[in-house]
Parts: sequence; C-alpha cells; structure tokens
Amino acid sequence: MNLDAELALAARLADAAGAAIRPHFRSGLESESKSDASPVTVADRAAEEAVRRILKAEVPRDGVIGEEFGAEEGASGRTWVLDPIDGTVSFLAGRPIFGTLIALLVDGWPVLGIIDQPILQERWVGASGRPTRFNGKEARTRTCAKLAGATLATTGPQYFDDHQGEHFMALAARTDHKRMMMGGDCYNYGLLASGHLDLVCEAGLKLHDWAALVPVVEGAGGTMCDWNGEPLHAGSDGHVLAIGDPARLEDVIEAMTCHH
Amino acid sequence: MNLDAELALAARLADAAGAAIRPHFRSGLESESKSDASPVTVADRAAEEAVRRILKAEVPRDGVIGEEFGAEEGASGRTWVLDPIDGTVSFLAGRPIFGTLIALLVDGWPVLGIIDQPILQERWVGASGRPTRFNGKEARTRTCAKLAGATLATTGPQYFDDHQGEHFMALAARTDHKRMMMGGDCYNYGLLASGHLDLVCEAGLKLHDWAALVPVVEGAGGTMCDWNGEPLHAGSDGHVLAIGDPARLEDVIEAMTCHH
Repeated sequence: MNLDAELALAARLADAAGAAIRPHFRSGLESESKSDASPVTVADRAAEEAVRRILKAEVPRDGVIGEEFGAEEGASGRTWVLDPIDGTVSFLAGRPIFGTLIALLVDGWPVLGIIDQPILQERWVGASGRPTRFNGKEARTRTCAKLAGATLATTGPQYFDDHQGEHFMALAARTDHKRMMMGGDCYNYGLLASGHLDLVCEAGLKLHDWAALVPVVEGAGGTMCDWNGEPLHAGSDGHVLAIGDPARLEDVIEAMTCHH
Repeated sequence: MNLDAELALAARLADAAGAAIRPHFRSGLESESKSDASPVTVADRAAEEAVRRILKAEVPRDGVIGEEFGAEEGASGRTWVLDPIDGTVSFLAGRPIFGTLIALLVDGWPVLGIIDQPILQERWVGASGRPTRFNGKEARTRTCAKLAGATLATTGPQYFDDHQGEHFMALAARTDHKRMMMGGDCYNYGLLASGHLDLVCEAGLKLHDWAALVPVVEGAGGTMCDWNGEPLHAGSDGHVLAIGDPARLEDVIEAMTCHH
C-alpha cells in the first residue's frame, strides 16, 4: 500500500487541528461538561470540525469516527479516526503534553497514525512499512534487556478498575518501580517510540485513543497489543500495551497474568 | 526585606542550571544510580556544580543545601536551597515538565523561589511581598468556589505509603475526580500559581523539593502548608499542600482528616 497521498493529507489534518487548538490553550476559558462529566473544550470541537471539513471535501467516500461528533460510515473500506485532544485533563491544566491523534484504518486495521503536540510543535508520524518519524527524523524504540530495568508509564491509576489495577500492579512490581511515570496520555507512546521509555500499559481506551498509536510505535520498532498479547483491531476491548522492545513481550504478558 | 539583588542573582543561577541541563535532555545518556536507586543524571550534577560555583564566588557567607551535594553551612542566616532537576523520572523519559528549583531561606523560612523549566523556557519567580511572575508577567491563582469543583494534582500514588494514600484518597473523593491529574512534580505548582489547577497534595518531599514552591504559590495568591494546615518551615516533615484559593483551606484539611 502506497500511503504518500494519505500521509500528506494526514499532515494537513494535524496542522488544521493544531491551528484550531492553540488559541484556547491556557486561555482561561471554562469548559463545558459532557453527560459523563469528562472535560471537553471548545478547542476539541473546533479542531474536529476543521478536520472533518477537509475530509469531507477531499475524501468523501472515506468513513470518519471522531471523539466529539461520532461515526459517519464510508463506502471505501477506509476510516479516519480522530481524537482532537487526547489528554483533556492535561490540556485544561495548561500542561503541554496532550496530543491530537489522527489514524487511518483499512478494514479495521490502523495503517497510519499521527501523534501531534501542537503547543510544542512535536509530531510523530507512523505508517505501515515505513520508519516512524519524529519532526521529520527517524525515531526508534530502545532495547530493554530485562523487564526489571524497564521504565513503565500510565496516565493514572484512577483509570483502572480494581481488577485491572491488580494486573497493572503485578506488571509494575516486575519493572523498575522507582522510574514508573504517571500522567501523559498519548505523549507517553511518542516518548516510547523515540526510545525514552520502555512500556505503557492502559485500560478503558476507546478506538480513537489508541488507533493512531499503533503505526507510530510499530514503525519505530515496538509492539502494540492487548493485555493478552493479541494485535489491536477496531474490535479490541481497550486494554492496551505498548512495548518498546518486542523481545520483552512474553515477559510482560506473563507478569500481567501471574496469579497470587 | 528588599530582595532585588537576590532576585537578580537567583535568575542568573537558574540560567546557569538551564545551560548545564539542556544538552543532556533526550541525549540518550544512561543515568547513574544512587544508593536509593533514584535516577540521577549527569545533568543534575553539572547544574548543581554550576550554581554552587556562582554562590561561592558571590555570596560566600550564605549557606547552601543541594539535592546532589548536601549541605554547606553559612554564617549569614541565609541559605540557598537547590534541586537542579526536580522530576528526574520525567527528565529521563524525555518529558519537558521537570524543573530546576532555587530557593532562598532566611532563618528557615523561604522568602524567594524559582521554578524554571529550561526546555520550554518557562520560569515562575516568587518573593515575599511581591506578586509572582511567570516569564515576566504577573501570575495569579484562580478562585475555587467549591471543593467539589477543584482540580487536584499529585505526582503519583507510588509516592504515598498506605496511610498517606488513605488521606489523599479522602481528599480526592471530595474534589472533581474526573479531572484529577497525575505526574508533574514542581511543574504542577507553577500551573497552580498561574490559575490552571486548584490543589496539589504530596508527601515525602524533602526541603529542596518544596522550598522554592512556597514563594511562587503564595505570591500568586495561594497558600502552602503541611497536611495539618501549618506553614512550611525548614523543619517541616514533607507533607505538602498547595491550595490556589485560600478560602478552601479549611475544607481541604477537613476532607483529609475525616475518618471512615
């Protein structure tokens, strides 16, 4: 699959989202509350509208799934998946480590992904069969000789239920616990792709939260899978692992499934 | 107390620390391990050495307490307190929300503080009796009409023991739980001073972790205290609260001390 045209389009989508988001960062604007009380901002909606406008004009036969405005089915077998602001809590608190996520799925498999940090102007771009790029330069995950030396990140324990938390803690106990890092949302997956940390473990993610991460992490040499080690597909259940060094995949799955 | 000279000196200390730190960020250098296995980098030591060199030349009668090289007593009743890289886990993972902390204590009370983020070139400066400044502009905490609407931040639950964790969770349960934010170290206190979040709650902090935060937060209109609501002094035990709106102080202390 030649993705040149799609990569060029995706870059313009990220540019448009960033332009819509930047004026609202640290602006002091109060956010609305959705029915589930998760924070959502004017910026989130403005960015998704800007992206959808371009998609409608340029690839009207493609489907679109967005965090803010739901799903529009397409006729091409291809679907763009959008999360204009992943990390709304960080965004609202003025912390520039949220990100815009843009993915392209073909038959439910992510083949292209962008993680864009519009304030710091940092962008990771991944696509099937190509090396991941961070601001234009090739990004590579790092090797991790032993699980005990791994740096593990997750956005926060409050996103796990008790059962998930137990599995997470079982994994954490086998890694370098002193370097475990909390917070960060999609930004942690970018840092993993660039070789700065080894593992990210999360649960409860929606398709728009993880789809863009897969091509970024895998194009950098890492692996993404669910908590059973299965590849991530549109039908996956939101338990997500990113592993910088694929040689540690078995150790990670074993650590997470071990019983007391 | 006129702190003009001290503020000018402190700014030069932060500049020197930043210059020593920047070349090592995302450099791929492996870090050493201290005896307690906390990560410490070449940058950390280089920055503290640079700052101590200036202090020794310019204010040789002042004491110095630094994270890396311990305490040197002075003869002036004044002590500079340094943490060249607060947030070493974030630093090592390539996340630009760590900070350089520089404080001046007089008789054990912090009267001047700087939180500097050398990668993003963001600097909060606080001093007794003056408005806190963020990159030169006045910073103010925001009002918080109800504890239930407060955004709470902490660096991570792994830094609490079980007992501390219970008190933290009692507070978290009374705030806007959906917006609770993990990770961030000193950067969260800067964001609080700028009115982007309402509460930070931590335990186990050393003097060098919190001294610089007090003038920044209080000069922006907030309050800092220990978990009993007492002001922070060099002899405090490392349980630290930052409260953007002092009108919520009683609610916070009550929430944390309430029993099951």
